[in-house]
Amino acid sequence: MGVEYDGTRFHGWQTQSGVRTVQSDLEAAVSRVANHPVIVHCAGRTDAGVHALEQVVHFETTATRSERSWVLGANVNLPPDVGVRWAHPVDDSFHARFSAQARHYRYQILARRTRSPLQRDRAVWVHEALDVEQMRAAAVALVGEHDFSSFRAVACQAKSPVRRVLYLDLSERDGLITLSIGANGFLHHMVRNIAGVLMAIGRGEASVDWTRELLEVCDRRLGGVTAQPQGLYFVRADYPPEFGLPQCERTDPLQRLRDH
Amino acid sequence: MGVEYDGTRFHGWQTQSGVRTVQSDLEAAVSRVANHPVIVHCAGRTDAGVHALEQVVHFETTATRSERSWVLGANVNLPPDVGVRWAHPVDDSFHARFSAQARHYRYQILARRTRSPLQRDRAVWVHEALDVEQMRAAAVALVGEHDFSSFRAVACQAKSPVRRVLYLDLSERDGLITLSIGANGFLHHMVRNIAGVLMAIGRGEASVDWTRELLEVCDRRLGGVTAQPQGLYFVRADYPPEFGLPQCERTDPLQRLRDH
Repeated sequence: MGVEYDGTRFHGWQTQSGVRTVQSDLEAAVSRVANHPVIVHCAGRTDAGVHALEQVVHFETTATRSERSWVLGANVNLPPDVGVRWAHPVDDSFHARFSAQARHYRYQILARRTRSPLQRDRAVWVHEALDVEQMRAAAVALVGEHDFSSFRAVACQAKSPVRRVLYLDLSERDGLITLSIGANGFLHHMVRNIAGVLMAIGRGEASVDWTRELLEVCDRRLGGVTAQPQGLYFVRADYPPEFGLPQCERTDPLQRLRDH
Repeated sequence: MGVEYDGTRFHGWQTQSGVRTVQSDLEAAVSRVANHPVIVHCAGRTDAGVHALEQVVHFETTATRSERSWVLGANVNLPPDVGVRWAHPVDDSFHARFSAQARHYRYQILARRTRSPLQRDRAVWVHEALDVEQMRAAAVALVGEHDFSSFRAVACQAKSPVRRVLYLDLSERDGLITLSIGANGFLHHMVRNIAGVLMAIGRGEASVDWTRELLEVCDRRLGGVTAQPQGLYFVRADYPPEFGLPQCERTDPLQRLRDH
C-alpha cells in the first residue's frame, strides 16, 4: 500500500504502548478489512511530527479483496490524518523495507521574519534569511557514497554508516526552501542532521567546507543540531519494476528543479 | 496589520458569543499590547474554515509602540493558528474595508482518486478528474463588470450585485488546481459559488456556456452548489500606495501563471 499521513498528531510510525502511532492506526484499519489481525511493515520508519506523501507498507493476508476494496475499506476505518492512496498485490519476495532500492525525502524550511500559522506543522520556521547558494554549494560534498557517521543519531542501530546519496537539491520559492534528497538508504536522523548543518551554513554560522569536514571526521559530536521534525516528509521509495507498484510521487530531481 | 490564519479551528472572522473567532482572538492579543480595549476591522470577513495569507486589519489606539513591538507583542499573545506578519501606522483616513481598492482570493481543489491527509483542511477534494481547459474557457465570461446575482448568497446584504472581476486564472500542478481571482469587491460566498459552478463544468455536468447564462439570468436559485470553505484563501487586499503598507503577498496573475 501507498500511505500518506500528516505526522503532527502521531507519535511517529512505530507502535508504542499508550500513544497514537501510524502503524497501530493502520494495522487496526487493515485488520478490519482483512477480517484477521495484520502486521504492517514500512519502507522507512518516521519520527513524531514527520509526514509522509507516499510511505510504502506491506502485510501478509489470507483475505482476497480487490485493490479498490483494500483502499476504500482501509480509508473508511482510518482517521482524517492518515490515508491509503493505492494497494497492489505482491508475492512473498516483496518486503517494504528490504526490497526498497532507494528512498526519497523532502525537508521544508520557511525563512521569513514572522511565524506562519498555515505552515506551522508543515515546515520549520527560521526568522533570518538563509543563503541558499551557500547551502547548495555545501550540499555538493554530500552527494555520492560516504561514511555519514557525523550525520547519524547516537541511537542509530544500522550496521554500516556508509550510504550513497543520489542527489541533494535545494529550491526556493516565496521564502519556502525545499531540500530534496534521495539515497540508497538513510541512517537514523540523517536527513534532519543534514538539514541542521545546511541551515547553519545558510545562516553564515559555518563555512561551505563544513559538510566535507564533517564527512572526514566521522564524529557525530562535531555535527550540527538535528533540525525539527515538522519540516520532514517521506516522499517515496523505489522498488524493482517487476513488482508493478502503482506509485504516485515523482522523484526525478531535474523535473523538480524545473517546477520550482 | 497583515494577518495570516489557518481557518480550520475558527468559526470564521467575526466575533460571535460562545465560539472562537479570528476577530476575538486578535482583539484580545492587540488589546494586551495596546493596554486598552481595541476593536479590529478587516478587509474581508471570512467564513468558518476559510484561511487568510494576508488579511488586512486596522484599529484605533492611543498607545505608541514600534511596528516591531506591535508584531512581536501580538504574536506572543496569539494562538499558533493565527499570526501577525507586519504592522504599520496609518492616519484616520484609512479603513481596512473601505479603503481597499481590490481583493484577491485563491481556491484550491485537489483532484485525485483518494483523499489527502495533508491537504484535508487546505483544499477541497474531488475524486474525479476535472477538465481544467473547460473550466478556464468558462471562467473568461466572468471577467469584467457584471451583475453577480447568480453567484451571491441568499443572505448577502450588499446593496449592489455588480462587481468587477479583474482576473480569474486556473493553474494545475500534481492534481492540485488553483483558482486565483481578483475583483474590486466580492459578494457573500461569491468565490465559493464561482468555484462550485466551475467544478461542475470541469466534471462535465454543465457546459462551458453556463457561466455566461448564469450572469444573464441573475438568479441564485439557478446557480451551482457553494464549494466547501476549506479550499478558500483570502490572499490580500490592495490599498492606495500613499498608505505605504509593507504587504507581502504578490498579486500579479501573470507572475503566478509563470510560477505554476
